[in-house]
Amino acid sequence: MSPATFIDALQHELQLTQYGQYPTELYDPIRYIMSLGGKRLRPLLTLMAAHLFTDDWKKTVRPALAVEVFHNFTLMHDDIMDRAPLRRGQPTVHEKWNDNIAILSGDVMLVKAYELLLDADADKLKQAMARFTRTAAEVCEGQQMDMNFETRWDVTEAEYIDMIRLKTSVLLGYALELGGLLGGADKETTDLLYAAGVNIGIGFQLKDDLLDVYGDPAKFGKQVGGDIIANKKTFLLIEALEQATGSRKDELTGWLTQTSFDKAEKVRAVTTIYDQLGIRQITEARINDYFGRGFANFDQIQADPDRKEFLLQFTRQLAERES
Amino acid sequence: MSPATFIDALQHELQLTQYGQYPTELYDPIRYIMSLGGKRLRPLLTLMAAHLFTDDWKKTVRPALAVEVFHNFTLMHDDIMDRAPLRRGQPTVHEKWNDNIAILSGDVMLVKAYELLLDADADKLKQAMARFTRTAAEVCEGQQMDMNFETRWDVTEAEYIDMIRLKTSVLLGYALELGGLLGGADKETTDLLYAAGVNIGIGFQLKDDLLDVYGDPAKFGKQVGGDIIANKKTFLLIEALEQATGSRKDELTGWLTQTSFDKAEKVRAVTTIYDQLGIRQITEARINDYFGRGFANFDQIQADPDRKEFLLQFTRQLAERES
Repeated sequence: MSPATFIDALQHELQLTQYGQYPTELYDPIRYIMSLGGKRLRPLLTLMAAHLFTDDWKKTVRPALAVEVFHNFTLMHDDIMDRAPLRRGQPTVHEKWNDNIAILSGDVMLVKAYELLLDADADKLKQAMARFTRTAAEVCEGQQMDMNFETRWDVTEAEYIDMIRLKTSVLLGYALELGGLLGGADKETTDLLYAAGVNIGIGFQLKDDLLDVYGDPAKFGKQVGGDIIANKKTFLLIEALEQATGSRKDELTGWLTQTSFDKAEKVRAVTTIYDQLGIRQITEARINDYFGRGFANFDQIQADPDRKEFLLQFTRQLAERES
Repeated sequence: MSPATFIDALQHELQLTQYGQYPTELYDPIRYIMSLGGKRLRPLLTLMAAHLFTDDWKKTVRPALAVEVFHNFTLMHDDIMDRAPLRRGQPTVHEKWNDNIAILSGDVMLVKAYELLLDADADKLKQAMARFTRTAAEVCEGQQMDMNFETRWDVTEAEYIDMIRLKTSVLLGYALELGGLLGGADKETTDLLYAAGVNIGIGFQLKDDLLDVYGDPAKFGKQVGGDIIANKKTFLLIEALEQATGSRKDELTGWLTQTSFDKAEKVRAVTTIYDQLGIRQITEARINDYFGRGFANFDQIQADPDRKEFLLQFTRQLAERES
């Protein structure tokens, strides 16, 4: 048994999964976006959580994939809303096909996520479905909040954390909770797994924000400073807007309202302001705080130490990742 | 007990149903589209089918609403894809708000449909969910086929019937099947209910196509001839394209390829071609055929005759409707 066992089981099921055939315009985009890869973070969390409580964790592979298919559905629709040209370095579905196909193909992906979840054990099905449904609605709420924030300059840190909790973290929480539930854990334990996932998810998203500015260009995989160029309201920018005063605040808002600028110069200048305000340290402290809460949640879970080690190691990798 | 009892129970639950509060941009469009009314055909079918087999049909009101919410979700997303400005005489969601809100609000509606369906009795939940999921995917397939047909001139009658079966009829079939299932009917009976719904649904859609050309303007509620003006590929047009030959075919394709025309003149001319080809009679015969199959399905169902009469009367109204 090694971490690769989980990945292999997932890849095997991913290859077996049939989404549908006709009309091809409806199902080709699903195969396409699912083939673009990604970390498969969410379904791996489900499998590892199930493995804490049962040897028969393979029965959770299809429900785990439900979470991954749902996640990719949100990417397909978010990319339309954000007019994003690329996803994982490849053309987005609405670019490769068109908006209508991306809307409808995404709709059927959401349905297919429910189909995969129907594979959950009958005695756990209602709970798995109810919690999935609640989580799915919250992810949509987070996406709407994110869009609302685009036209606001007074977003508070608390609002931002709440938005990423909904948009990103609750699904990680659900992924862990689902694994625990289907693995046979009790309510107290599935609550802890959910809390761990939410905390780790917030840490994970804050790390994303941090890497976009302070990542090593050789390792990051995306353009460092992309969020600064796009005026994206990240934790770093919101924190800087809250902290900055006087001429430094004027300089920062100056860069934010500039419509014509040299990209590299803007990235350098805003990063310098972040440096002066200690934003990197503030963000790193927050990331450590949220991951720390997640580890504390894991600590309270009663399970075989060797099996827990898989989850802890995986979580440590997320905390320490550089891309 | 009268038909109004079902409608009242439905309206009562519609008013009680909470979709969500925050962000308001996400949930206001759901309340808006659900408030625009409509025939509430699908949930009424569910209630009437349940009533065939149980006095406790009120327990099916929330699952019945799941079907109605799903139907309205498809309208919200179809209206984006079709760039429709109006729905039931009011601005569509993407017009009143914007495309992004209509996409995301629709997504959460699909999730809310599943939430309502979770109210089904525990021992029927998996079956209700599995059949709903299958039906939902088929409705998306039908919508994609409909979009594909827009750019094709060689759509056959069989393809068209298959498209409307998926886009419209399977959901009516599911609405009846769900009522039977939750009411306690056996598999043979729920299969018959489904078949009845599919047949009635095809008849219903063909009637829609017919009324758009031959409806009484005083009763129809929409502009008669709208489909002809828009070159919409209805049963009547597909049939006419298959039947017409020689100069009559040239005249018909002439009107279809004309980019500048007097609307009333085009409606008159194409209707005349339909008249000459006997399209009205062909379509009416088909409508009667499908409704007849639906009634034959109902005939085979063992249930209290008085209770069946509700369903039969309701179906006769659909067959005879003029708007």
